[in-house]
Amino acid sequence: MLWDYQQPVAIRFGNGRVREIKDVAASMGLTEGGLLVSEHLFAQNGTAEKIVKDSEGAISEIFSDFSPNPDVTEVDKAAALIREKHLKFVVAMGGGSAMDLAKSAASIALTNDSIAEYHGTGKAMPQEHLPIIAVPTTAGTGSEVTCVSVLTNRALGKKAPIVSDGFFPSVAIIDPELTYSVPPHVTASTGMDVLSQAIEGYWSKGHQPICDACAIHAAPLVFKYLPIAVAEPNNAEARQKMCEASVIAGLAFTLPKTTSSHACSFPLTNIHGIPHGEACGLTLDWFARINKNAQHGRVQEFARAIGFEDVDAMADAIHELKVKVGLRTGLKDLNLNAEQIADLVRISRHPNLYNNPVEITDEMLQDMYEHLAATD
Amino acid sequence: MLWDYQQPVAIRFGNGRVREIKDVAASMGLTEGGLLVSEHLFAQNGTAEKIVKDSEGAISEIFSDFSPNPDVTEVDKAAALIREKHLKFVVAMGGGSAMDLAKSAASIALTNDSIAEYHGTGKAMPQEHLPIIAVPTTAGTGSEVTCVSVLTNRALGKKAPIVSDGFFPSVAIIDPELTYSVPPHVTASTGMDVLSQAIEGYWSKGHQPICDACAIHAAPLVFKYLPIAVAEPNNAEARQKMCEASVIAGLAFTLPKTTSSHACSFPLTNIHGIPHGEACGLTLDWFARINKNAQHGRVQEFARAIGFEDVDAMADAIHELKVKVGLRTGLKDLNLNAEQIADLVRISRHPNLYNNPVEITDEMLQDMYEHLAATD
Ligand SMILES: NC(=O)c1ccc[n+]([C@@H]2O[C@H](COP(=O)([O-])OP(=O)(O)OC[C@H]3O[C@@H](n4cnc5c(N)ncnc54)[C@H](O)[C@@H]3O)[C@@H](O)[C@H]2O)c1
Ligand SMILES: NC(=O)c1ccc[n+]([C@@H]2O[C@H](COP(=O)([O-])OP(=O)(O)OC[C@H]3O[C@@H](n4cnc5c(N)ncnc54)[C@H](O)[C@@H]3O)[C@@H](O)[C@H]2O)c1
Ligand SMILES: [Zn+2]
Ligand SMILES: [Zn+2]
Repeated sequence: MLWDYQQPVAIRFGNGRVREIKDVAASMGLTEGGLLVSEHLFAQNGTAEKIVKDSEGAISEIFSDFSPNPDVTEVDKAAALIREKHLKFVVAMGGGSAMDLAKSAASIALTNDSIAEYHGTGKAMPQEHLPIIAVPTTAGTGSEVTCVSVLTNRALGKKAPIVSDGFFPSVAIIDPELTYSVPPHVTASTGMDVLSQAIEGYWSKGHQPICDACAIHAAPLVFKYLPIAVAEPNNAEARQKMCEASVIAGLAFTLPKTTSSHACSFPLTNIHGIPHGEACGLTLDWFARINKNAQHGRVQEFARAIGFEDVDAMADAIHELKVKVGLRTGLKDLNLNAEQIADLVRISRHPNLYNNPVEITDEMLQDMYEHLAATD
Repeated sequence: MLWDYQQPVAIRFGNGRVREIKDVAASMGLTEGGLLVSEHLFAQNGTAEKIVKDSEGAISEIFSDFSPNPDVTEVDKAAALIREKHLKFVVAMGGGSAMDLAKSAASIALTNDSIAEYHGTGKAMPQEHLPIIAVPTTAGTGSEVTCVSVLTNRALGKKAPIVSDGFFPSVAIIDPELTYSVPPHVTASTGMDVLSQAIEGYWSKGHQPICDACAIHAAPLVFKYLPIAVAEPNNAEARQKMCEASVIAGLAFTLPKTTSSHACSFPLTNIHGIPHGEACGLTLDWFARINKNAQHGRVQEFARAIGFEDVDAMADAIHELKVKVGLRTGLKDLNLNAEQIADLVRISRHPNLYNNPVEITDEMLQDMYEHLAATD
């Protein structure tokens, strides 16, 4: 078996560590020209301003003019600001949407291109990029340690990841206290993203031992702590453990890549507006049952390593977890017609689908979506 | 809980991948001026020469004039060669001894200093260094992914690690086939190093989640595959799994650092010539029993996570493993007198000892060494 591993992001984890932004930047030789891409709430409630002030001149601009599942036009706006103000580095503080926007903007700003030229076109991103300090505020995507930026082109109805070595942040500062303000439904959805990324990273055709170890570490934390984080937003232990699970699941999937559940999440988000993590979780137990005997028992080993009798028991627990944290277990409320189901089947045929250990046919997808369409 | 993580070494793992040295160097922009620090056997049997030839001019010199537990004078010799020939990068192919010598030489060569000035003196290593490509030929130290270089100063009777960010290799190429020629007793000893590093990395006071996950991955591979690798040197699966365990145990301990068994190994190696891994393993089950209830049950959790009933059962299994692979379980044959035991106690008070989760007193060390002195 051949495998490669690379993890260039330095991680700083712990409550209160958001206050280290200035020192981290200084240790990288960055003492001016910083752009803070900030989560809305923090732009509104004064947190972003306080960070700028505490940076003592290192950060001079704030950008928060973007939406969840950020659009290519929003990336271009951030890049234009970087060019106009001759900015030198980017602090990306927010959920996956903020971080992914910042990563693409930090690369594209050094060109005169629109990011749209690189989005889903296969054109390689430029190698030069501004240094990035990533500060996640959801326990979800793990984008702070990945080389992926997921963007949407609403004009073309397209959502797709761009991959570039230049997207690896230099440093990830993970401060669990930043996640206390995440509302319960977003906590639930982003937490299900963590679980999906851990499990899919493990069973991906591109699996490898270090990422396996990370997946086995991250997944059980979600089963244990996500219900607590949803029920008690200020529970310090639950928030901390979910942040730990999130960054370590990020390590687990970034090289092996995600598989079937992420492939199916794209149309569920794009067409039906289901949040990313919730969309991934919707099909996770279904694919677990399909993959259960794949890879000569590896998936069964995973289920046992994280404390379940077997994969069926793990799939049951995924279902129960969704019920407990208030996430969708079906699509019945959408009243999908045959054409809409056919669209879901067709658009789920995303490259990630081919990383799944079992070949997924259109019939299998049809079967799954019909079942979900009939389920509450 | 606060923790930091950094792992800048890119890993390439798999049989036959030693042939990628030239491509790896080229991808780093290195097409000439390479020094191959080569394991003796490979310098003798033509392997090193073949690597130089296959490098098509990228590697121009071979250095293999060093001994196990390399001496500071040997590092200075390698550095002198680098200076004399104006070499530009180092390929370190060998066990921990070869890699550690190469790491120190690659830093010191850019100065006019002797490495002795930095060895056990606390003087910070220079930041500039030649790039290093590490190619381990034992499944043992994990030095290919660590920022540590362990050297000996025989004139002063001192063995100590030097730590420097400049010691991280740029790339580690792990080719299990290179380990087929390792003799059974070296396989056994280096394999016990892997186990010690995984377990000590886990229970070190500096433990952290990503390293925990790596330790839990690596340790059970040693219990399963080390006896096979010792009994059947050409068993491809066992060699591959031991190499996997070795590099992942390297990740497990490099940040948390090792603890009591490594502290005690230094005098056992220096004074009594016991190979590094064998010396670590000698006290590993003893310290496991001492640490078993430390860290609010974390050590018990580790034992259970890797498939044992509890820490006592794991300690029993460590003892059995040593018997099975032909390693020492005692020091009776050395006929140690009271003064020699007192020396062992005294010199075991190495900084690593203070990473142990339970405070280790001189009485505890005395007790342990007396027991070992009376045991076959
Ligand atoms: N780059 C990657 O590796 C990667 C991996 C998976 C998913 N993604 C992408 O990331 C995006 C999803 O990111 P996400 O799940 O983190 O959601 P998000 O960033 O879209 O945030 C979800 C909602 O929560 C709000 N929010 C975020 N942090 C908050 C906080 N601390 N307090 C209060 N509100 C807060 C946001 O404003 C938003 O309304 C999707 O586009 C997805 O495709 C990227
Ligand atoms: N840098 C680190 O992070 C780190 C960690 C642990 C230990 N160490 C140090 O590393 C050294 C031990 O390294 P080691 O255990 O790998 O042993 P080693 O490098 O000393 O090698 C042991 C013996 O095996 C031979 N050998 C090595 N590879 C061979 C092969 N493929 N075929 C045949 N013979 C081969 C060597 O010539 C030597 O005689 C010690 O000095 C120890 O303190 C360093
Ligand atoms: Zn995701
Ligand atoms: Zn060691």
